[in-house]
Parts: sequence; C-alpha cells; structure tokens
Amino acid sequence: MEINLKNIHSPADIKGMDLDHLYLLSEELRGALMRKLGAHGGHVGPNLGVVEATVALHYVFDAPKDKIVYDVSHQSYVHKMLTGRIEAFLDPAKYDDVTGYTCPRESEYDLFEVGHTSTSISLATGLAKARDLVGGKENVVAFIGDASLGGGMALEALNYAPELHSNIIVILNDNQMSIAENHGELYSHLTELRNSNGTSPNNIFKALGYEYVYVEEGNDLRELIKAFREVKDKNHAVLVHINTMKGMGLPCAESHKEEFHFTAPFDLKTGAPLSPYTAESYDDIFSLRMLEKMHADKKVVTLSAGTPAAVGFGEERRKLAGSQFTDVGIAEQDCVAMVAGLSKGGARPVMGVVATFLQRAYDQLSHDIAINNLPSTFVVFYGSLFGMNDMTHLGFFDIAMVSSIPNIKLLAPATVEEFLAMLDKSIDNSDGPVVIRIPGGKVCHQDAPVNTDFTKYEIVEKGEEVALIAEGPFLTTAKQAAAIMREKGVIPTVINPRILSEVDAECLDTLKNYRHVITIEDGIVDGGFGQKVATYLGESDVKVTCLGLKKEFLDRFKVSDLLKANNLTPEQIAKLAQY
Amino acid sequence: MEINLKNIHSPADIKGMDLDHLYLLSEELRGALMRKLGAHGGHVGPNLGVVEATVALHYVFDAPKDKIVYDVSHQSYVHKMLTGRIEAFLDPAKYDDVTGYTCPRESEYDLFEVGHTSTSISLATGLAKARDLVGGKENVVAFIGDASLGGGMALEALNYAPELHSNIIVILNDNQMSIAENHGELYSHLTELRNSNGTSPNNIFKALGYEYVYVEEGNDLRELIKAFREVKDKNHAVLVHINTMKGMGLPCAESHKEEFHFTAPFDLKTGAPLSPYTAESYDDIFSLRMLEKMHADKKVVTLSAGTPAAVGFGEERRKLAGSQFTDVGIAEQDCVAMVAGLSKGGARPVMGVVATFLQRAYDQLSHDIAINNLPSTFVVFYGSLFGMNDMTHLGFFDIAMVSSIPNIKLLAPATVEEFLAMLDKSIDNSDGPVVIRIPGGKVCHQDAPVNTDFTKYEIVEKGEEVALIAEGPFLTTAKQAAAIMREKGVIPTVINPRILSEVDAECLDTLKNYRHVITIEDGIVDGGFGQKVATYLGESDVKVTCLGLKKEFLDRFKVSDLLKANNLTPEQIAKLAQY
Repeated sequence: MEINLKNIHSPADIKGMDLDHLYLLSEELRGALMRKLGAHGGHVGPNLGVVEATVALHYVFDAPKDKIVYDVSHQSYVHKMLTGRIEAFLDPAKYDDVTGYTCPRESEYDLFEVGHTSTSISLATGLAKARDLVGGKENVVAFIGDASLGGGMALEALNYAPELHSNIIVILNDNQMSIAENHGELYSHLTELRNSNGTSPNNIFKALGYEYVYVEEGNDLRELIKAFREVKDKNHAVLVHINTMKGMGLPCAESHKEEFHFTAPFDLKTGAPLSPYTAESYDDIFSLRMLEKMHADKKVVTLSAGTPAAVGFGEERRKLAGSQFTDVGIAEQDCVAMVAGLSKGGARPVMGVVATFLQRAYDQLSHDIAINNLPSTFVVFYGSLFGMNDMTHLGFFDIAMVSSIPNIKLLAPATVEEFLAMLDKSIDNSDGPVVIRIPGGKVCHQDAPVNTDFTKYEIVEKGEEVALIAEGPFLTTAKQAAAIMREKGVIPTVINPRILSEVDAECLDTLKNYRHVITIEDGIVDGGFGQKVATYLGESDVKVTCLGLKKEFLDRFKVSDLLKANNLTPEQIAKLAQY
Repeated sequence: MEINLKNIHSPADIKGMDLDHLYLLSEELRGALMRKLGAHGGHVGPNLGVVEATVALHYVFDAPKDKIVYDVSHQSYVHKMLTGRIEAFLDPAKYDDVTGYTCPRESEYDLFEVGHTSTSISLATGLAKARDLVGGKENVVAFIGDASLGGGMALEALNYAPELHSNIIVILNDNQMSIAENHGELYSHLTELRNSNGTSPNNIFKALGYEYVYVEEGNDLRELIKAFREVKDKNHAVLVHINTMKGMGLPCAESHKEEFHFTAPFDLKTGAPLSPYTAESYDDIFSLRMLEKMHADKKVVTLSAGTPAAVGFGEERRKLAGSQFTDVGIAEQDCVAMVAGLSKGGARPVMGVVATFLQRAYDQLSHDIAINNLPSTFVVFYGSLFGMNDMTHLGFFDIAMVSSIPNIKLLAPATVEEFLAMLDKSIDNSDGPVVIRIPGGKVCHQDAPVNTDFTKYEIVEKGEEVALIAEGPFLTTAKQAAAIMREKGVIPTVINPRILSEVDAECLDTLKNYRHVITIEDGIVDGGFGQKVATYLGESDVKVTCLGLKKEFLDRFKVSDLLKANNLTPEQIAKLAQY
C-alpha cells in the first residue's frame, strides 16, 4: 500500500480511498508538513493538530461546492495540500508559492483572505443566508479553534447562526490552547464537556440552540468521518466539538505548545531554531522595563490580548509578573476597556499589542479610553513596514487610525532611549492616554539625552531651505538622505517629530520660509502625520511632500522593493529635495 | 406617609427608609420621570423598567465606594435622581442640566462616559482588578441589559470576569427587548431560564463559572433587595438575572416597546408625539428604495445591527422585506462580516448603520470587506455634525476612519437624487465595497441629472482663482459663500467632490494655478478628504485651507455655535477666501 502525494490534485483524488489508505495519506501529509515546517517555519502546532480533521472534511464534504471557512486560516496548510497545492509542500523551491492563510487568489477552494481570529462563523452565516436566498443546497462549514471562539465576534455569530434555521456546521477544533494558554471560564466549560465525553447536562452550545456532537478522538479519522457524515446536510445549526492535540506527531511541538504555535525554521529532532535570534529586540526591552516598573509599584499592570510572547511576556516573564500581568485571551475589545477600568480604579495599566490587532478595538480606544481621557499606555508592536508582511497582518494603518481619535497622544520614538523615556513618562504621569509605536527595523540607540517634552518636535540636524521631518525608523533614513544632500551643497534641517497625533505649530512656523518640507512616515500617507503637516502649512508658500506608503493592501512584499516604490530610500529622498 | 423627592440628595437619604417608604419613593420617582420624559423625550422604556432595580441598588450597595457601571447608561436616569441630580428631573428649566448617559463631569457616582453597548463588564473587570491590586474591599457591579449582553465585547468579558476569582457582580436586566426585538438563540435560552424560574439545568452563566441568582419579580423592590443583599460582598463572580418590564407603568410604553425605547416629547396619555415629524427623511427614502430593490431581486438583502428603525426599517417595513431583511442584534462585527459572506455567496448586501456604531466594526470593514474587496454597500446615517450631539454618539469620525482603509470607496452625496444613484449603482455593480454617507442637515434635491461616474469631482459652479470643494451638506453652504463672494467681485469655482476616499487628480490639476482652494467637510479635518487634497496640492503654489471640525469630543453642542467656532458659516468662508 502506497500513497504518492504528488498525485493528490484535488479532493476528488481522496474520495475513492478506503480507510486504510486515508490513514496512510494522513501520515504522509504529516510527514511532508513537518519537513516543510522545519525548513521553512510557520504555524507548526495548529496544522499538525488538524491533519486528520482536514482529510476527513475533504473526504466527507464536497468542496468547493460545500463551503468551508477556516477561522484565522493559519491551520489551512493541509487544506492547501489537498486542494491542488501539494507542490508547495513537497518542493522546497516552491515553499513560498502559497501564503500562510487561505487565499482566494490561489484557489477557488479558499473563500476568504483571513488572518484575524473569530470571523469564520459570521462569514459562514453570510454564505448560508446567501445560499438560502438563491436556493442552493450546499453545506456551509465554519472550522474554528477553541481560542478563536473566545473572541467577541465569534460569540456574536455563535449566538446568531442558529436563528437562520438552516444548514450551518460549526466545527470546534478544541486543542486546549490559544497561542499561549486560554483565558476565561469558557475553557473550564469545554473541559467539563470533554471530561464528560460530551454528555454534561450543562452545555453552552445546546443552550444556544445547536445540535451538539462530541468527538473524543479528534485525531482519529474513523471517528471524524463518522461525525462529519452524521451532520452533513442537516437543516439547522450543528456544532461538532472535536478534541485534538496541537502539534500532534512532533514531540517538541506536543510538549512546547506555545513556542511551537508559530516558529521560524527549526531542527525537527531537537526543536532548536536553525538561526537563533540573538540581536536586541523591543519585546525584550519592553518586558524587562515593565518587570522593573511592576516590581517597584504594585499598581502597574501589563496586559495582553492573546499575544503575550509577541510583546515580550513569554511563560517565564509572565510568572515573574504574577498577578500584575493579565492576558484576557483573544479579546482585544475586552482588554482595552479593562485598561479603562484599571485606570479609573487607580492602577497604571500598560497594554502591549500588535498593530494589526489594535484595530479590533477601535471603538474601545475611542470611547472607553479617549472620551474618558483615562491615563493609560498602549505599546504598539509591528506597526511598521519593517514588521509583518502578510496581507492580513500589515502594520501600515495604525497611525491613521489612532491619530484621528481626540485626546490620545500618539508617540513615535526613534531610539531605545526615547522609547523608554516615553514609556516611563506615560506610566508616571496622569495626563491621559498615550499610544507608543515601537520603531520598526534595526534597533537604534542615541547618546544625547532625551528631551521629555514629547509634544515638541526635535531638531536633530539644523540646516536651511529644506526640512526632513522623519519619524521612527525613517529618522535614520533622513539622516542618510541629509548626508547625500550635503555633498551636493544643500544642508537640510532634520527633525524627529516624536508626536504624530498633533503638529508642533511652533516648530512648523519656523519652516514657513523654507523652500521645501518633506515628511516621512512608517505607514500610509492617508491620515498620517504628514498630512497634518501639509494641512498646517497649506496656507504658506513652502512646498510640502508627504512620503510614506500608498494606501493599499500588499502581500509578502520585499521591504527594499516597497521602499523604492514609495520614494523612501535615502537617495530618492535626497533627489526629491533638490529639484 | 409622604416622600418629598426634593429631599433626596444622595443615596444616604434612602438608606434609612423602610420598605413601605421605598415603595412610595419608587412610585414618586416613576411619576417624576414620566413627566420629564413626556415633556422632554429620552430613553423612556429602559428607564421606566429599572426604577425599582435602581432604588434597590442604591439601598443595598454603598456608592460611590461600591462601584456601579451602567451598560450604555441610557437607563441611568433614576440613578441620577438618587445621586444629587433630582432637580434636573423635577424642574423643567433644569431638564438639560444632566446628560442622557452617565457622566463623570456631573457626579462622582458616575464612573464613565458611556453610550455604546456591551462595555460594562469589561470596565468592571478593570475596576475589580485595580481594587485587588490596591487592596480595596468594595463591590464592583456591572448593570447590563439583555440586548447588550449579545454584543461580542460583553460576551468576551462575561467569559473573562470569573477568572479574576474576586468580587464582581453582573446584574442582567432582562426586559426581553433590544431597541427592537432581540436576535440570537441566547434569548431563547434566557426565556428557558425565566420559564424555569431560574432552575433549568442548562445554564450558560453557570457554565461560565458564575454563581447565578434569578429574580422573577424584577420590578418588585422586596425581591430585588433580598437578592442584592445576598450577593453583596461575595468573593467571586455572581450574575443576578432580573426579569423586568420595559416601559413599566406607562401603558403606551409597555405596549409599544420599540417606539418607546427612545422618543421625542410625547403625550403621556395617548403616546402621540407632541411635534410629529412629517418632513422628508433619508431613513424613509433609503428603506423605500431598498424595498423596491429587494422586491425586484431576491438576492438583495438589507442588514442592520440592532438599530433597524434608525435606518428606516420599523416593524412594518421589516415585515414587508421578509427574509430579505436581517437584524443580527447589537453585533456590528458579526453583521459586517456577514455582509462579506453574503457578498461572497452571490447576494447583494446593503447594511444600514449609524456612523458612531460603524466604528465598532473597523477591523471587519478593513479585513472581511476591504481586503477581500467584496461588492457590498454600507449606508451610514448620522455621520454629520447635524446628527446626534451626545459625546458618545458623535458622527464626526467616520470619514477619517473609512477613508484610510484601502479598496473602499467612500461616497458623499449632496442630494437625494445623488444618494439614490449611488445606492443603485453600488447594488448593481460588482466593483467592490462602497460606503455612502447620508448627508446631514436639510434634505436637498437637485434638478440636474446625476453624473454617475462617482470617482470624479463635479464642478457645480465654474469660476476662477478661488475654489470651494464642499461635500455633503456643505455644498449648500459653499454655494451661499459663493453668492457672497460674487457680490464682492470674486467668482469662485464650487465643486462637489462626491468621493472622499481618493482625490480626483485630473480636477485638482486644473486648480494648481488658482490662488486658493478651500475644502469643507462634515467631520474632523484630521484624516478627512481635505487633507488628501492639501497633500496632493502640497507641491504646487496654490494655498489650501481645510475646513471641518477640530479633532475633539463635544457634548450637546449647538450646531450654530459649532459652525462658527470652526469657520463653517457662509460668511466666514467667503471672508477666508478674500484676504
């Protein structure tokens, strides 16, 4: 008996297999997956845990007619392997032919570009409702992890879906983990359901109107196929609760679930990273300073919404912080409003958050925090073109988002020293909310003392005629551009604005008799700080050019290409200033 | 036995009362409340339903030491009456001395400015956590309605709160209504709990780790006091489920719960509005056109997230629309992603949404809709300074928010004809997402045919030297300013931009030799369309002035004052252009 994965071009190629072949297929898929994950990195644990569930899904359901929506879709690798993209998992030269998430540009089997959690059930209700309006008969399946289920949007949809009184199948992939551990009592309840083999009379899903099916052996194909067959074509809402093991089959991933949620390339045997990261990093700098702050003052609290390690609080540092570190799970809205409550109650809350996820709490930032003008700090990671480059995880938009909300000071340090001074000041003062944007790119230091009046732009190099106002990592770029310009006889003024949510009118007034002001920012130009500068100077005679990114969604770009395409290299900037 | 409400200055004044006096107090409060509501308007049903619960809360708990957080806080009128603000409910001259929501600027008994739903439990967890860090002993109470509980953020917090293992008391005010009817199976579950007098073995709150207490007579003081005393000072999470009647005591409000959720002044006996609104309105225009569209094509769907009447779909029109109208309840995130699913499934979804609530679904608009570039329509109501003027319901921010998201066309019609042409085109075409911003202020018409290439600015009056680019209601203002300017010998060009998310470069190029371009928009200047224009023209010699609102939160402003403060009257604009 043998399976050649190269012959798997579509789910049709597995429909005729008997169970023994399917078991073998799963083993082969897992082996190939491991080899790619070790060499390439990626979402290790989530994908290894759903090999069997994905095979069973495509064996029982008839995609693309039946519609499967993966939540987050970071666990869709096996789905890709079964739907015409196996080469991207077998041939190292083709590893990057597929994205890390579902992608309609790649395949009709992928319905949505997804990357944030908790959206699958809502998307599925839309598909189901559309089906019912046009008179279709297909199954609609939402495949969602236990961690994603705790996100408010998933709970909204979980509540609404049964009201369609129509076919919708929610598969709850319960691997008992979030990226880190789960938070909230929903998870005690899932434990209760697992421990009772799904028979507990108290059942939140039944309470919400679902037919409930429990699969104890969620990595066993036979059980999964049986359950999926049972629920296929039902005319009401069904929830299939499958108990799976994250990282299944790879010892290091089974035993270190948090580290192997997502990793860079690693040694399959030892789990050790192939290129250990030893350089200075802001997550480390941030968490160390917060530990100091928390140690010195019991009222200081650090918060995260489901991504503690991304902000420097891995397991060990969470332990050191004790009750002064709070992770609410993947629940950004709850977390931001909890910050508001903490501040009102006299604590000193600091939330570490990844830029792309901050936008999930826009309303809370605006209302609970900003309207109430509550002293609090938000430290934003990966808000940068030097950050993540998946289309669903871009950090280009937070400047525009945050700086259009009144009362919030949006600060952009350029160096470690500036960052720490901003962080310290935001914790020690009671002025209102502060958002600090960690600079992307290479970690920079400064020798000069930090001027802590952060409402003032800082003149870094004094020149004339041309001014470069460059925030965050682009301060270095601006200095390089200035060096080139000086060679050609132009001595520009270089300014580090530090605050992006308002302009320093006094400083800008001194530029009104300049020839040219160029703003440079690490985000889209639309709604950015440059446009505030251009507007302020709009009635004066000085020319203003706003550099930054075009307003567009990009996928897996090369940084150097992106810089060039947007006139952001030192050479381009120097040239711009010299016409 | 007599109660003089004027003598109620703080909760201390009711602590010594016996039960008979408390009953009498409640009656007096309800009477005074009705008189104000009839003469002044406001949230009728929600407040009449919680008279007894509020009295019991302040009788049992010790605010402001004990901390009570009201969800939405539209039901906090009786709380205000009991906490030093009774005059604002007794003396018609002082009716407007208090806001319609909790307001820390008014009283230390009010903890947060709130106005959006589903935030109370999160805020309470923050207060509770802060208390535990500083070693306090007070009770923390979240008072939340059944409708608000369906919002994702509330569910996130409901899940998280018990993990504090500390005092937190959630009072679920179950009046069996949202603004309109509730949606989602959570509500069948609440019915099950009520019908079993709280004894059903299936209990979502117990499943989530709460001690659960049920009060069948939620408008009976004795029962409420007993229950609140029972849960006071508990050291873990408790949920008290109280069964109340929305509109209690006022026949018209009891029988017409949706109409009397919030109303303008009305006759207490008949329920008839004192000043019936008969003028043309966009909610009516929108819903009529949608009914036509839905009748003509089964694939057209109208959606709302809990505010159907605000977008023209009162009970009668919802019936006419049948299954082609969907209200998901107060769950904006779910609704926007459901729009994405509907579009992907081949339907033609149109969501009607109030501007201030759209910001609750920023991430879904960006990811589910915009990244996927799915044809869909969002019609935004009250996105205007002529709209709602409570600090928590401002419509100033949606231009900045929406126009910094790639792929979305943000359109701003100035007339009914333009609006309908935009709506029709967005439904008939398959170009991607469109957000249409209903113009605020007086409903305007146009005789000229509508140019349906909405990516192009439209020159309304051709002049020279000075251009006024004015969107939405400010097109009328610009025409008035132009008339004044013409009297003084300047003949400006007046332009209706119609699209706010991108500039019409071709049109702007023709203005580069002008002396002055003035943009005027109905929202904050920061991140608005004017700043895009200023940036585009930044390298040219033309002066640009961006008019619009300052970035700030305002409360219950007078429109005429606000216009003047921001240079937005025709006279001010005319003057600006003439220096």
